[in-house]
Amino acid sequence: MEPGMISLAGGNPDLAGLPLDALGDAASALIREHGTEVLQYSTGAGIDELRTELTRVMARAGIEADPADLLVTAGSQMALELITAMYCDPGDVVLAEGPSYVGAISTFMGLEAEVSHVPCDADGIVPDALEARIAELRAAGKRVKLLYTIPNFNNPSGITLAADRRPRIAEICREAGIVLVEDDPYGLVRFEGETVPAIRAADPSVIYLGSLSKIFSPGIRIGWVLAPREVRDRLQLLSESTTIHASTLSQHLALTYLRDFDWSGHLDRAIVRYRERAEALLEALPSALPAGSTWTRPSGGFFVWATLPEGASADELFALAAEEGVVFIPGSGFYADGQGERELRFSFSLESPERIREGMTRLARASERYARR
Amino acid sequence: MEPGMISLAGGNPDLAGLPLDALGDAASALIREHGTEVLQYSTGAGIDELRTELTRVMARAGIEADPADLLVTAGSQMALELITAMYCDPGDVVLAEGPSYVGAISTFMGLEAEVSHVPCDADGIVPDALEARIAELRAAGKRVKLLYTIPNFNNPSGITLAADRRPRIAEICREAGIVLVEDDPYGLVRFEGETVPAIRAADPSVIYLGSLSKIFSPGIRIGWVLAPREVRDRLQLLSESTTIHASTLSQHLALTYLRDFDWSGHLDRAIVRYRERAEALLEALPSALPAGSTWTRPSGGFFVWATLPEGASADELFALAAEEGVVFIPGSGFYADGQGERELRFSFSLESPERIREGMTRLARASERYARR
Repeated sequence: MEPGMISLAGGNPDLAGLPLDALGDAASALIREHGTEVLQYSTGAGIDELRTELTRVMARAGIEADPADLLVTAGSQMALELITAMYCDPGDVVLAEGPSYVGAISTFMGLEAEVSHVPCDADGIVPDALEARIAELRAAGKRVKLLYTIPNFNNPSGITLAADRRPRIAEICREAGIVLVEDDPYGLVRFEGETVPAIRAADPSVIYLGSLSKIFSPGIRIGWVLAPREVRDRLQLLSESTTIHASTLSQHLALTYLRDFDWSGHLDRAIVRYRERAEALLEALPSALPAGSTWTRPSGGFFVWATLPEGASADELFALAAEEGVVFIPGSGFYADGQGERELRFSFSLESPERIREGMTRLARASERYARR
Repeated sequence: MEPGMISLAGGNPDLAGLPLDALGDAASALIREHGTEVLQYSTGAGIDELRTELTRVMARAGIEADPADLLVTAGSQMALELITAMYCDPGDVVLAEGPSYVGAISTFMGLEAEVSHVPCDADGIVPDALEARIAELRAAGKRVKLLYTIPNFNNPSGITLAADRRPRIAEICREAGIVLVEDDPYGLVRFEGETVPAIRAADPSVIYLGSLSKIFSPGIRIGWVLAPREVRDRLQLLSESTTIHASTLSQHLALTYLRDFDWSGHLDRAIVRYRERAEALLEALPSALPAGSTWTRPSGGFFVWATLPEGASADELFALAAEEGVVFIPGSGFYADGQGERELRFSFSLESPERIREGMTRLARASERYARR
């Protein structure tokens, strides 16, 4: 990226508030005192103590889990790849929000699954529309295997699935024999309102994906999957064939952070920064986007999703914005079917409020030029 | 494992000689001074400076490589999984040494490839037999996609593919349109004789897999693949769909170790230990194994492969040996087709010479009991 460019593109967490000196000391102690263990092969399941700590993280989402049902993976993206490989043959259908996470869509398409976007509104997936879509697909002879959802502060939409829809959506999937995959990297990054229990909290047949990427560090590549025992065991075999196990050093550093540090306090402070940034973005958007644009108002996470007026092109606005020195991500990559032409994602996780405001000033110039084009 | 059990089973490297204090300091400095970088997302290709260092490691195997042709993965097992997924449809044939690495066989079988073991002798794969096997398989209507080989100190056989066979095997594969995958985790762990140049050294169409697991640390999960550019680029997309990238922290620690430490000196000292252990094992084997057994004499690596006399069962000997307090791995898991009933693998990488000698005393008792059964 060019120096001076303001990036509202990437979904990187803000790591500046991490207790880096103490983490450095912890890493040093792990290697000095236990180097022949933390640099050695470990088990395919993940370190037991880490799995126990991760069940405590999930307890905040209302999930009661047995550590034995949990598999640590080298990031939750990997768990999604293994799940898709396990359930989907080419041509099978994966249901997903529209828009949805780019990395998930590329995993589904890479494994030759068909992605069908389920109708959503400001409260997430619409249960009746989900039911109708499943019926439609089945009538067309399709095998629908998975529903993939990011119910909290969705990437990219920022939308949260309403609490009262969650049990209904789980029920629809159960009845249709569709595996529900709940991807929840952002659930604990809430800056207003009350926690909504995870779908998995009420339905142990749900496969739940967790991640330390947004609440600690994405660089260490530690995620996990909570799944019914038999599914978890099959996933472990696939995981061993792929990475053998997640980095032992990363697992020990994660364990130390969750067990010995005030990770929750550090997260709370990061959330204050994310909220300030979201507010800076949301305050400036009315004067920065072309007239007639709309956008979501997230209560957490990293993203705001905007829709330009009818007939507008996010790609064209992007080109002008980049010239002015600010970037976002045009929307079509978040759909499997070429939708999203006039939609776009802003990330507010990494730039300061001042930089975000400056970015919006630049975007306003781009929007003016776009209006005059 | 029970306390007191002597394990000649696992292929774990001996990490006791690593400069753990200095590595702890290095990890601490990385996190304290560059924490927002080494704990953050990085690039799908792997860190540029690490890729450059890895080309220097490969130079010792006679390979001249452009860092841009190299992809860092979360262990070389992962590269093999991605390569197999990329090239093989269900029913396609992968040629491999017999015996071969368990993790490779399970990757091939997991992706529903058929594994065909190529005839080998004390100098590795027999070129004429390879050619004949390919012709046979093709005559039977099979699509042969890959030849997978561990040419140096093969896991599990300990055998090294003779230098003069290497170009011929590469040529056979090129002419047959078969992709040759050269897996070389042990090449630098040589304790006698001269380095044999990698197959890739003379043939840039070969896909070469490298690993830090045996020369530094398996726990950090850092491997790499060197492949023709177009293949490498496709593998990177698959890699990003799976782990996004290998642990950033692991990559930086590996970079620091290769760039700033005397890694080669540490490896030389580890090799002295491996040689002593191999010698302890090889000296004791004649009186420890049932009469009429034979075994390989490796010049490096971690393993000795033994063959019991006609009609004997490695599983039965294993059961008695475990009762006596020593374990190895029975051979059938190293074949895709149930061969190996009277074969077995000893690893000498992790136990001291004293413990290995004690293990051989125990094995001798097991062999006596086996003879009297």
